[in-house]
Amino acid sequence: MLGTAAKPQTHQPRSRPKDAQDKSSSASRMALLDSSKHSQDSVLSGVNPDLASERLTASFSVEELTARLDGGAEHTRMRRAVVEAIEKDPVFSRENQYFQSQNERYEAAVKRAVYLQKKMREMGWTENGPEVKYIYRCLSGDIAFSLHRIFMRSISVLGSDKQVAKWIPLATEYQIIGTYAQTELGHGTYLQGLETTAVFDIASQEFILNTPKISAVKWWPGDMGRSATHTVVFAQLYVHGKCYGVHPFIVQIRSLRDHSPCPGVTVGDIGPKMNFEHNDNGYLMLQNVRVPRENMLSKFCEVQPDGTYVRWGSQKINYFTMTTVRISILSEEVILPLMKACTIAIRYSAVRRQSKLKPGEQEAKILDYQTQQQKLLPQLAAAYAFHFINIYLHELFNRGYQEIQGRNFDSLPELHAFSSGFKAIVTQYCTSGLEICLRACGGHGYSQLSGLPSLYTRALASCIYEGENTVLFLQTARFLIKCFMAASAGQPIPPSVTYLSSMKPRNCPAKDKLDFLSPDIYLKAYEQTAIRLLSSSAAKLQHLIQSGVEKHEAWNQCTVQLVKAAKAHCHYITVKNFVETVEKLDNKAGIQKIMKHLCDLFALHGIFSNAGDFLYDGYLSGAQIDLVTASYLDLLAVIRKDAVPLVDAFDFTDKSLNSALGSYDGQVYQRLYEWAQKSPTNQQVNPAYGKYLKPLLQNKLSKL
Amino acid sequence: MLGTAAKPQTHQPRSRPKDAQDKSSSASRMALLDSSKHSQDSVLSGVNPDLASERLTASFSVEELTARLDGGAEHTRMRRAVVEAIEKDPVFSRENQYFQSQNERYEAAVKRAVYLQKKMREMGWTENGPEVKYIYRCLSGDIAFSLHRIFMRSISVLGSDKQVAKWIPLATEYQIIGTYAQTELGHGTYLQGLETTAVFDIASQEFILNTPKISAVKWWPGDMGRSATHTVVFAQLYVHGKCYGVHPFIVQIRSLRDHSPCPGVTVGDIGPKMNFEHNDNGYLMLQNVRVPRENMLSKFCEVQPDGTYVRWGSQKINYFTMTTVRISILSEEVILPLMKACTIAIRYSAVRRQSKLKPGEQEAKILDYQTQQQKLLPQLAAAYAFHFINIYLHELFNRGYQEIQGRNFDSLPELHAFSSGFKAIVTQYCTSGLEICLRACGGHGYSQLSGLPSLYTRALASCIYEGENTVLFLQTARFLIKCFMAASAGQPIPPSVTYLSSMKPRNCPAKDKLDFLSPDIYLKAYEQTAIRLLSSSAAKLQHLIQSGVEKHEAWNQCTVQLVKAAKAHCHYITVKNFVETVEKLDNKAGIQKIMKHLCDLFALHGIFSNAGDFLYDGYLSGAQIDLVTASYLDLLAVIRKDAVPLVDAFDFTDKSLNSALGSYDGQVYQRLYEWAQKSPTNQQVNPAYGKYLKPLLQNKLSKL
Repeated sequence: MLGTAAKPQTHQPRSRPKDAQDKSSSASRMALLDSSKHSQDSVLSGVNPDLASERLTASFSVEELTARLDGGAEHTRMRRAVVEAIEKDPVFSRENQYFQSQNERYEAAVKRAVYLQKKMREMGWTENGPEVKYIYRCLSGDIAFSLHRIFMRSISVLGSDKQVAKWIPLATEYQIIGTYAQTELGHGTYLQGLETTAVFDIASQEFILNTPKISAVKWWPGDMGRSATHTVVFAQLYVHGKCYGVHPFIVQIRSLRDHSPCPGVTVGDIGPKMNFEHNDNGYLMLQNVRVPRENMLSKFCEVQPDGTYVRWGSQKINYFTMTTVRISILSEEVILPLMKACTIAIRYSAVRRQSKLKPGEQEAKILDYQTQQQKLLPQLAAAYAFHFINIYLHELFNRGYQEIQGRNFDSLPELHAFSSGFKAIVTQYCTSGLEICLRACGGHGYSQLSGLPSLYTRALASCIYEGENTVLFLQTARFLIKCFMAASAGQPIPPSVTYLSSMKPRNCPAKDKLDFLSPDIYLKAYEQTAIRLLSSSAAKLQHLIQSGVEKHEAWNQCTVQLVKAAKAHCHYITVKNFVETVEKLDNKAGIQKIMKHLCDLFALHGIFSNAGDFLYDGYLSGAQIDLVTASYLDLLAVIRKDAVPLVDAFDFTDKSLNSALGSYDGQVYQRLYEWAQKSPTNQQVNPAYGKYLKPLLQNKLSKL
Repeated sequence: MLGTAAKPQTHQPRSRPKDAQDKSSSASRMALLDSSKHSQDSVLSGVNPDLASERLTASFSVEELTARLDGGAEHTRMRRAVVEAIEKDPVFSRENQYFQSQNERYEAAVKRAVYLQKKMREMGWTENGPEVKYIYRCLSGDIAFSLHRIFMRSISVLGSDKQVAKWIPLATEYQIIGTYAQTELGHGTYLQGLETTAVFDIASQEFILNTPKISAVKWWPGDMGRSATHTVVFAQLYVHGKCYGVHPFIVQIRSLRDHSPCPGVTVGDIGPKMNFEHNDNGYLMLQNVRVPRENMLSKFCEVQPDGTYVRWGSQKINYFTMTTVRISILSEEVILPLMKACTIAIRYSAVRRQSKLKPGEQEAKILDYQTQQQKLLPQLAAAYAFHFINIYLHELFNRGYQEIQGRNFDSLPELHAFSSGFKAIVTQYCTSGLEICLRACGGHGYSQLSGLPSLYTRALASCIYEGENTVLFLQTARFLIKCFMAASAGQPIPPSVTYLSSMKPRNCPAKDKLDFLSPDIYLKAYEQTAIRLLSSSAAKLQHLIQSGVEKHEAWNQCTVQLVKAAKAHCHYITVKNFVETVEKLDNKAGIQKIMKHLCDLFALHGIFSNAGDFLYDGYLSGAQIDLVTASYLDLLAVIRKDAVPLVDAFDFTDKSLNSALGSYDGQVYQRLYEWAQKSPTNQQVNPAYGKYLKPLLQNKLSKL
């Protein structure tokens, strides 16, 4: 190999002039770069043997696991058919997205959304059909009009039958494009503080909407900056000078004739963000904008022509859209991205060789280092854990939605507490897992071409939007404290929290590291820790109040601990659900066994990482933490053997991963090299040379 | 306020046509937006009263603290003079950086670097002068040629006197632009695995450099993609077919006449990254590139004309540049950015009001929520802690460098262990702190205009470059294990680790929460925990080896715990140094008292967050953790009162922060609104309308 004259035959933007090139043989060129095409689909030299070997020893059937994840083989078939139809159509390609500006990203996302409507008509897919979720998965959400769906959902949930009949067909047919204008410059999570006003004018039977001050400017709504024609606006309703709180109004913001802003409307884009360049998050100012009385969404309340305000349901129902949105985003926005990141990082770690485990041997795959396993495999286990909790949450919400349709609002507090806490824990854990995956890929993970930076920066937003996570955890904590108090008083509490009234055992009976592979053992530890964190917060709260601290101030002084308690509750339920899911599996094709390993790993990683919470009251001893650590580290080595098959089972196509590091064939270095050639930084003559570098190098600074 | 016709007079990119506008009074316009100018320097309506009030009650002199941070009032004066000179020159403006493409960012960074040379000549500033660090601080490192400095440093450290005499003047005068080509596509941290070759050719007295395979392509060197003319290349040296390991060679890569790549050189840009758009990180392939024998840097070893290889110093000296770079980056790349993020997030938290602490009252400043304090104030304390440890490390390295100049290499292992561990802990902690600050600002923190996303994504790279942090922690752990074994055997160990041989007390004597404000108490807890983590790792390692596990495999099985031990060591030293720094302060102007609070907070936050490590062996009891928690939460409330003055003391100008949320005057909503107007997304007619939206809305998809 030494001294081999080696030169790629690929396009060389910054190469020396042709006439100066050596005439190296094409054979030696090929030695350096087997492929020279620039297409993302270039035929590389087969699967990297380091990756191929990982697939030979799977302890389970990858195809069978994929089918389980999809909910059955027929769903897998449908998903693959949808993905194939989308991916073979170049109009949906995301190949160059890492090189595009915000304007280009937006235009491409609109283009995809519009062509998707065409495609759906061609394919016979409908908005409510089973294909839709596969389409969005396949496009990684890199498409416009996502707020249009939320616009429609809020009308469906909050609108009267008449309003649904009027607006939903218009929106379904895209005769209008909708968005959802809730947050303002000065208000995010605290909806009651919104400052936009809607004053009922009896004379004209209209609401007059206004933005009274700078902090009331609507800020952040997606699809609003440059696309939407209509929006649901949340505003303080005033009738006869009396404020009735925040209500939703349908407002047209752009002309359907020429797309210019409607009278009284100022609308624009809020500028660059950490991600979501494809989305025209916008701002909106309203100045005496009038909408007819019928535009206030009125399934649960109404302003009658004479100004009488009538309500039929809980005011809290206004927030139900938000509650369901919190759950509906989890899969698309953070769980699938974490699965992708695991796929990228684990495949890369199987082909990346660095340093030597044993002197004299070949450099080792980084996946064989315990520290790398400790970074990646708990994320893999978490991806499975959250996939299963997501199924659980959807079942819970579907039941709840049925009840609410029947005007039974009893489950709202529990649903609200669940959606808040799980939105917070899943987004937080997945975002942190994505960052770990990115960093575990070293320098190449930091390249946009790895796909990991964009997965991470996008997921990070989920910790903030649809309710900031700390605020959400505190809402869950408030519910838990109420339930805990009720349980202490012997009152009935919802089934999901009955554990709060369970007896406390003296301490954990585990004596051997294998004991910690028993779900009974670790579930009890999680349960007791969750109870203890909640009960000690409750005790502190009561103590403060009894010693004369005002209630709100006492609450504030307990919030750091309350957040911990809410997290512990959600963590416990997630582990419990994973255990129950594994128990229900049969062990056909080795599935149950490997899922049990992942479940154990998820559970023990949580104890290992939060040992203080388990040691605090002696429920676990230091010696037992050693057993947990031993079992946990053993599991890393066990799961490492199946790591590549476990990410293969997620069944992402290369196009969907869009990663130079994560492709199925593991040809990472060639892809990095080839993709870099397409960068705009390599496509133009360097204007900085003539303008700045040349004068500097030639000592002509004074002429600048 | 209700129903006020309100309309900004500012530029409205997406506003409705002029002829349709209401004729609202200019007074009402002013009610919404007090300022209408687009300049970042527009005169806003004074300081936000919510921020002004925070500055009235400082317990210490802000100016005095600034002077202490700068190392004396004369340094503060010099820094401010440099900042003023730079900031008043529009050529250095970073005002529009959030709107620029990678190509634009690169060109602007080169422009700034070149004009800086001009400016320095005008001002009489020199490369080694005291002003330089202030210049880079002021420009936030958003400037080209940072690798040029590392190129020069590696020549200074590794080059012979003759080489220094030849190359340093050329580089100082920018007759050449240098970079540092170490990492390859296939190799980052493991330098011994580099695959680029340099074969000595006796006949011509030249080295012949080659890139033998794709994984050997140099990848990531900054300034290389489009700017550098020369580079130090690290390559495997071969003489007479024998490999002597990795050595540094000076290689010209671009013509000094027209900047075209030299014969045999293929060079380009690696494409988009998570940040560092301003830097042309590049790739380099070499094909039979010849450099004269004199181009191998030969302060410590040489190939003589007959091919004899001679060495005068430790081979490890080759890595000394890297070791010093690790320390030299800390201030600029992560500590100052964390200080900036604290400034932005804390000022914003003092003007952002959201939700009510007490029913019926005004909405509360979010800084008054315990959870917000718990997010931000530990980061503030960490920024101070790392500022002080950075001073300590620089003193340590200056001493070490003197010794090495005198060819005394004894301190190299300790310096290497220090640089590795502290580079890892400081970058890791600061990066995580930056993310916390970003998330603590909610949605607006996610806007690029907040300045936080770019601070974070840039700092994240520091966890990877100059040695991946896990690898670095393990290098520190290896040193600590050696020292621990030596201490156990009664052998002498370096002063920085003598604590490893200290006696273990039975347990912590603290009985009251105030006891945990005693540095003796918490330092002892840190010390004992660090010793325990290291000794248990050492015991496990020995146990495995004694039970027949091969040494390298035993090491691998202990690495998760070894990383923990190395972190605990660095954490302990950081707390210890903070304590010692505070002890040396006098309490003039209240400085010592507030620094003591921050030191306590930093220490107690570490115990609170890693309680398991302190509880594990019973050194702290659960009841004592309650005392720690109580003291810790009390400190949050104490430091909160000084939070704004404590960030004011960092003395960043608005231009340097470049944040719509963090400016001194706290006019956050107006700035967000004004800055958004400058976005390219608001500067053009929306091309997506005619192309895609209109056909969709008008049901003409079939014509697409």
